[in-house]
Amino acid sequence: MSTPAIGPVLVVGTGLVGASVGLALRRVGVEVLLDDADAANLAHAIERGAGRALDGTAPQIVVVAVPPDVAGAVMAAQAERWPHATITDVTSVKDLPLREATTAGGATRVVGGHPMAGREVSGPAGARADLFDDRVWVVTPLPGSDPERVATVGDLARACGAVTVTMSPVEHDAAVALTSHTPQVLASVLAGLLVDVDAQSVGVSGQGLRDMTRIADSDPVLWGAILRANAGPVARVLKAMVERLDAVAVGLLDDGSVTEVDEALRRGAIGRARIPGKHGTDASTYAVVPVMVRDEPGELARLFVAAGELGINLEDVRIEHVLGRPSGLIDLSVRPEVGEALARGLRAQGFDVRA
Amino acid sequence: MSTPAIGPVLVVGTGLVGASVGLALRRVGVEVLLDDADAANLAHAIERGAGRALDGTAPQIVVVAVPPDVAGAVMAAQAERWPHATITDVTSVKDLPLREATTAGGATRVVGGHPMAGREVSGPAGARADLFDDRVWVVTPLPGSDPERVATVGDLARACGAVTVTMSPVEHDAAVALTSHTPQVLASVLAGLLVDVDAQSVGVSGQGLRDMTRIADSDPVLWGAILRANAGPVARVLKAMVERLDAVAVGLLDDGSVTEVDEALRRGAIGRARIPGKHGTDASTYAVVPVMVRDEPGELARLFVAAGELGINLEDVRIEHVLGRPSGLIDLSVRPEVGEALARGLRAQGFDVRA
Repeated sequence: MSTPAIGPVLVVGTGLVGASVGLALRRVGVEVLLDDADAANLAHAIERGAGRALDGTAPQIVVVAVPPDVAGAVMAAQAERWPHATITDVTSVKDLPLREATTAGGATRVVGGHPMAGREVSGPAGARADLFDDRVWVVTPLPGSDPERVATVGDLARACGAVTVTMSPVEHDAAVALTSHTPQVLASVLAGLLVDVDAQSVGVSGQGLRDMTRIADSDPVLWGAILRANAGPVARVLKAMVERLDAVAVGLLDDGSVTEVDEALRRGAIGRARIPGKHGTDASTYAVVPVMVRDEPGELARLFVAAGELGINLEDVRIEHVLGRPSGLIDLSVRPEVGEALARGLRAQGFDVRA
Repeated sequence: MSTPAIGPVLVVGTGLVGASVGLALRRVGVEVLLDDADAANLAHAIERGAGRALDGTAPQIVVVAVPPDVAGAVMAAQAERWPHATITDVTSVKDLPLREATTAGGATRVVGGHPMAGREVSGPAGARADLFDDRVWVVTPLPGSDPERVATVGDLARACGAVTVTMSPVEHDAAVALTSHTPQVLASVLAGLLVDVDAQSVGVSGQGLRDMTRIADSDPVLWGAILRANAGPVARVLKAMVERLDAVAVGLLDDGSVTEVDEALRRGAIGRARIPGKHGTDASTYAVVPVMVRDEPGELARLFVAAGELGINLEDVRIEHVLGRPSGLIDLSVRPEVGEALARGLRAQGFDVRA
């Protein structure tokens, strides 16, 4: 990674993402200035090495890393304060904040951005120089954005280790409404239905329910702000979900025709196969090798040592949860061409590999 | 596990679950007879050691292990064929098949059952003696079931290694409609929305979408039959989902009030915390220790060896997928009282543990 010809970069807001931008840029020698209304956050980010406090230096680029409900106003204020700087942000919603930012002026200098790399933790303590490595960073130019400034924001994202993708703010918001914001609402609403049922009924559940509700314990304040900022696109996807779920419910109750049910299951399998896997391959192309191990310290280690000695890289690992005691089923996902070799190699070492 | 005073047991249907029942019972010395309309399946199950072919022996218990759309008729036929036997099944829906079974007679001898232990694989080749170990096996007596026969079905389930829970057929179906069947429909419908969008938009997605659509590639034929057999309860839960999703959509579009959104997020976090974890504890009570490792053969092994040497049992492992190359973030879930020790111990061995 050679040092790009960018900087000084001013990061406004030194939470998890802002401080990580600072650390990532410092890693490649870019000059970084930091600012935050919260003096403790700012001090912590400086101490972590994310940059130095804002001084008389005028930034080339300002990165606004604040919550979605204030991002537009902060971008507008920064555009006014730094009349020559390129203004960008890292907000997970693009259209509304960018419109708020540019009505106040500086429209040709504003270029939106959204690195797809959040974590459950927050604050500068969780910041990492490698948070954006190999992640998608969506760059969202406005119709009036200066092309050179668009290129500069791409350089910034790549300097942070990310892979850039260009979309319009409206395209971006429609995409994340479908792939991120609606799943959050579905998980929350489904989990919410568990509140009123008895514990025994909740207990009659498997891995499917766990997977489907995992994100329901995300931060409700942050998610409230995200969903409000992307209200229109999220509402549109929810309406489409509502229409199809209602059609399935009607189809189930109508003795004559249940084609809606079959159609939903069939389309679901097709859609699922479109989600890219870890290395950009189809998730569905992995071979899964299930192995039963005793649920004891060291047993997983023994399994992974054996896989490592076979020279086979594990693409994913899932532990199937069982009630209580002594064994667990581990699903090892590997590239299909090595699935047979892994199963054979593990069996040869006495592992209990499922057919 | 002492040999229970049950048997001979006749298993009708030697697919994955039926053959596993045979293997589990043979493991504890119970006499098992097998029957299947598919001669190849039957021969395979016998070869695997799941029991012997049905001969002149009259069974004490008949376990019907056939698809949900024919389970009722097969139970009725078995009740007629064996006028002294206790008839049970392993169908994932209870009310409709049991009503179909008992209208034909033998009502006092029929007791439903549902072991909560499926696998993605099917057929006798995937059968296992330990498939039911420590799993919940729901026993669903009918109002007229003979209590002694209810106890016998409980003995059967425990002989297979399972933990029994008693519910009425209607209670069972309402529970699985919420915890299993509706999640399947949600996953399929959500994944189905991905069919019509461009690949770049699908690419702007994270772990949440993967988790929320994982079960969308389940067998559509089997799931069509399950959803039809439990049509009423599933439709009721879907209607409740539709009502709440619609309220969130309306709340998002209504500038004045967005309390529906906040309420959905708040309730979701509460409901999520009610889902039992691996050892019957709350899922939310685990401590998560995130570790960054290089994405290479042997690296996971090194991590698990280190955890094993610390004597700490891993309750769950999640690998966060990143685009492309050289590192992966591993979330290790452990009991909260050992989270600090694991983080400290791994750091001491040079692992890159996140704050």
